[in-house]
Amino acid sequence: MPPTTGGAAEPKQDRSRVTRQRLLEATVRCVAERGWAASTMAVIAAEAGISRGALQHHFPTREALVVAGLEHIFEERRLDLDRLTATVGAGTSSGTNDTGADETHPAESDTTETDAGRPDADGVHAVVVRLVEIYTGEHFRAALQVWSAAAADPALRETVLPLERHFARSAHAMAVAALGVDDTDPQQRALVQATLDLARGLGLGDLLTDDSRRRTHVVRAWSTQLAAALGR
Amino acid sequence: MPPTTGGAAEPKQDRSRVTRQRLLEATVRCVAERGWAASTMAVIAAEAGISRGALQHHFPTREALVVAGLEHIFEERRLDLDRLTATVGAGTSSGTNDTGADETHPAESDTTETDAGRPDADGVHAVVVRLVEIYTGEHFRAALQVWSAAAADPALRETVLPLERHFARSAHAMAVAALGVDDTDPQQRALVQATLDLARGLGLGDLLTDDSRRRTHVVRAWSTQLAAALGR
Repeated sequence: MPPTTGGAAEPKQDRSRVTRQRLLEATVRCVAERGWAASTMAVIAAEAGISRGALQHHFPTREALVVAGLEHIFEERRLDLDRLTATVGAGTSSGTNDTGADETHPAESDTTETDAGRPDADGVHAVVVRLVEIYTGEHFRAALQVWSAAAADPALRETVLPLERHFARSAHAMAVAALGVDDTDPQQRALVQATLDLARGLGLGDLLTDDSRRRTHVVRAWSTQLAAALGR
Repeated sequence: MPPTTGGAAEPKQDRSRVTRQRLLEATVRCVAERGWAASTMAVIAAEAGISRGALQHHFPTREALVVAGLEHIFEERRLDLDRLTATVGAGTSSGTNDTGADETHPAESDTTETDAGRPDADGVHAVVVRLVEIYTGEHFRAALQVWSAAAADPALRETVLPLERHFARSAHAMAVAALGVDDTDPQQRALVQATLDLARGLGLGDLLTDDSRRRTHVVRAWSTQLAAALGR
């Protein structure tokens, strides 16, 4: 995203980018922990360890900050999904699935992919596990606080909606790719959507308490069902 | 719930119960539309059309009001589910399913129940539709605002958690009864949980925009899958 420029401007641009990154991470952390209303510009500047003036240099308004914050959340989730697709797609041929270690395919991960882009039942399970993870971390908690605030604030809602629509479409496309489903088949398409809705519901179930044990069983039951429906 | 008393005390108690009901409905409406932070005692009293003193007579603290509000939400959802169970259980033999009219079983609803308490595929679909409805109305939106606030407020979280645990258990038990599943079978149990998680995720998807068209397809795809998994 940053424009490519050469020469002496780069170190300053790098510094600026690092500050921007730190600000966005502080924004996400603040909103996830304190909620949207409490995450004022002053609170976020303090959390990031910079002056309020420096914050306003990067983001003149709170609206600009929330848009950038949501885009940052989206980008982080997208990277998670990209890593997932790479892991599942890698099958036996690479060492990149070391982050996706799972009790279900320790040694026999050569069965993870049946043919190009079509993970088998274990692969489907790995994809569902990762999709659900994307909805249970700090980024999701921050997004949830923004959604709740937006539900009670028409102006914020108008800001948030196009970003959410864009994210929903991308998440769907990435899940379709990772699962290797035929998105023109209405039933397969709806099952991918259902899987993302389930992930969102599980994320919500994890908001006030650690729901990970229960979630493990639910994800297993769901992915078994999904794999069967997809003929894997 | 109200104690049974006789004689002259009744009319006053009735009036008090009506006021309490109106207050709880105003609380739910306020919280769903404005969020938790904005729903102060003064705002809720104004919404209900009573004085702040009268509000405090019924609920001395905001905490007492939120607990009663959540219990009210829970009770309303429980009644929805009870009606659902009655509708599905009634099959052809009663007129109570007029509220559950659905394009999938207009005339041949005599196939809705295979045997005692075990709805067939159409019945499973009807149950899933109703479960999802419970998570997409004003009550769910209000609950979501409370959950978000509780995620950023440890004291509120401690108040809310036991109520939520109780609700989750009851919702599960009611879904088990409506679907007629064997809750001692781990796979069937997990599929009921997944259905409720899906319903919660679909509710979240409806927060900022009318998601009903997409939801219809998702619910259909999942209920087809669930019915097959349950052998209906």
